[in-house]
Amino acid sequence: MSASSRILNLAVIPGDGIGQEVVAEGLKVLSAVLPQDVKLETKEFDFGARRYHATGETLTDADLDALKAHDAILLGAIGDPSVPSGVLERGFLLKLRFAFDHHVNLRPSKLLPGVATPLAGQPEIDFVVVREGTEGPYTGNGGTIRKGTEHEVATEVSVNTAYGVERVVRDAFARAQARPRKKLTLVHKNNVLTFAGHLWTDVFHKVAAEYPEVTTDYIHVDAATIYLVTDPARFDVIVTDNLFGDIITDLAAAVSGGIGVAASGNINPSRDFPSMFEPVHGSAPDIAGQGKADPTATVLSVALLLRHLGYEAEAARIEDAVSADLGERGGLPARSTSEIGDALAVRVAG
Amino acid sequence: MSASSRILNLAVIPGDGIGQEVVAEGLKVLSAVLPQDVKLETKEFDFGARRYHATGETLTDADLDALKAHDAILLGAIGDPSVPSGVLERGFLLKLRFAFDHHVNLRPSKLLPGVATPLAGQPEIDFVVVREGTEGPYTGNGGTIRKGTEHEVATEVSVNTAYGVERVVRDAFARAQARPRKKLTLVHKNNVLTFAGHLWTDVFHKVAAEYPEVTTDYIHVDAATIYLVTDPARFDVIVTDNLFGDIITDLAAAVSGGIGVAASGNINPSRDFPSMFEPVHGSAPDIAGQGKADPTATVLSVALLLRHLGYEAEAARIEDAVSADLGERGGLPARSTSEIGDALAVRVAG
Ligand SMILES: CC(C)[C@H](C(=O)O)[C@@H](O)C(=O)O
Ligand SMILES: CC(C)[C@H](C(=O)O)[C@@H](O)C(=O)O
Repeated sequence: MSASSRILNLAVIPGDGIGQEVVAEGLKVLSAVLPQDVKLETKEFDFGARRYHATGETLTDADLDALKAHDAILLGAIGDPSVPSGVLERGFLLKLRFAFDHHVNLRPSKLLPGVATPLAGQPEIDFVVVREGTEGPYTGNGGTIRKGTEHEVATEVSVNTAYGVERVVRDAFARAQARPRKKLTLVHKNNVLTFAGHLWTDVFHKVAAEYPEVTTDYIHVDAATIYLVTDPARFDVIVTDNLFGDIITDLAAAVSGGIGVAASGNINPSRDFPSMFEPVHGSAPDIAGQGKADPTATVLSVALLLRHLGYEAEAARIEDAVSADLGERGGLPARSTSEIGDALAVRVAG
Repeated sequence: MSASSRILNLAVIPGDGIGQEVVAEGLKVLSAVLPQDVKLETKEFDFGARRYHATGETLTDADLDALKAHDAILLGAIGDPSVPSGVLERGFLLKLRFAFDHHVNLRPSKLLPGVATPLAGQPEIDFVVVREGTEGPYTGNGGTIRKGTEHEVATEVSVNTAYGVERVVRDAFARAQARPRKKLTLVHKNNVLTFAGHLWTDVFHKVAAEYPEVTTDYIHVDAATIYLVTDPARFDVIVTDNLFGDIITDLAAAVSGGIGVAASGNINPSRDFPSMFEPVHGSAPDIAGQGKADPTATVLSVALLLRHLGYEAEAARIEDAVSADLGERGGLPARSTSEIGDALAVRVAG
């Protein structure tokens, strides 16, 4: 790594609800794990419900410019019941994904030692979902006519391009190739959504030819939800569209220990724009400010962030620390947000 | 019931794979349960893979006319790996739903005594999903340009109308009103799919005003998959769109004992067209013809069929028989398809 890369220039978006608390612990662990010669520079951004209520803004062009000047973004949570549904989702979260072309939405699912799963018999779970992040029904295409009348028609258009599908399928094949089991499953609904389904299936087969070592299979999204609860061990890497990915990653998080430990990355592998890392759990306003939130998902998101920036050893140290910490939790009294962060910071530094 | 209604004029579509075997047991139980004075008349239709390979046809206008002359349709399973994906799904199953305007896709989920669930701790599960059956992304709207090139664009259009949404939401409220808990949950993704989401949400609130006794709530589809594995007891009746319904009903079937016991109805409540009842499991070609298929889902589909036609007592007798049979299965050696059918026929007749 070159000398100039030894500054880690991080945009921090604590956001709403428990966001502030969990991000503080994420930064604590990040500071503890970074090598001495790496200088962490953070700039905090006040996005979310507060800013929206004060100014009506969610994410301006100037905001995007300011964010762009960073190596990566760490986000706590965005969303509050006081804001109408859709405003922050479309106006902030999705706007950021589209503006920075975060087409690889990475969501690992690993059932860690000592973590409870709703499934019987503690199955082995260790897979990664690569969800497309910039296309599908998330593009905002569609519209409404005759709104509010008995003749209203509302449409949503799923847009799928060879360009958009191929780049995320390639990313997924590369990830599968790098894992011991080397298996990639395409999840779609190509028997009903035949236009998009053919595109996804054709591209998948084309790229598969370049990865002869990767075993491939295909599962309809409805059947995938069955396997996620009856045989999650069958999955290694999954690649899927934006909406299917949204759905199955929440289910995947639930079966592998809950959204309390689920991390995610909104990645632009080109690094033309900073990638964004966030816990899956959301703002949980009901427990905000009480020190009850588990920062583990944020800390694991920091690990994904470090790996994305090339700090592989540091990422692995965080993941090992989390595993060890969770493995020792069983039977212990509940700890506060900052107690968990402190414990993890000590482990990664040690 | 009038004298002339004492003929039950049933179209039977055994279909592919295990369809033939399970339908035979469904008819056995149906014959056993019907009152003496009801004459069962069945006509078998040879739809599915065989017919497609022989003639290239999946479902012609003449077929639809012939089916139309019946009170209801019992279907085993349609689908075979020898037929390209999508051909029978779009050409038969979906064509039938659209032609007969089967807008209420009814899928009960009940964890019956003695039935294994992949969830830990045998939670209480007893809910019904009312899935819209004729709109959403299932309409076949969409298309492809520049197919096979690196500039291909494929779209899928989800079409949602006030007419289509309101009738299924009304059906769901009526079902919730008739159940002891009187609770209805709308499942959608209205924070992202805002056009369709607003329509669904607005219609839901409008109809809710007419059902003051029904408790309502709203859950995003991704979160719904979490609750289905962590707290399925929270659900009583769910109403949702065609695609979300497809996905969550497979998951619901999995958690409540598997698709081996999951029944469904494709219902046109107006009775202008016959409704169609089918097990959720599909054709399972790997075990076809071996007497291994469990006919329980088909038998429970017969119960839904009877209830739809007004034979409430007979429907309940079948459901009780299935519960009793499943409750006694534990530890017993596996029985064949026809042994299970025989046992159920004896119970409902007795
Ligand atoms: C909040 C929402 C816009 C978002 C999504 O649907 O992608 C969330 O559910 C997620 O999975 O990150
Ligand atoms: C086979 C397919 C067309 C169908 C659907 O998607 O509706 C099936 O999955 C179902 O749920 O009945």
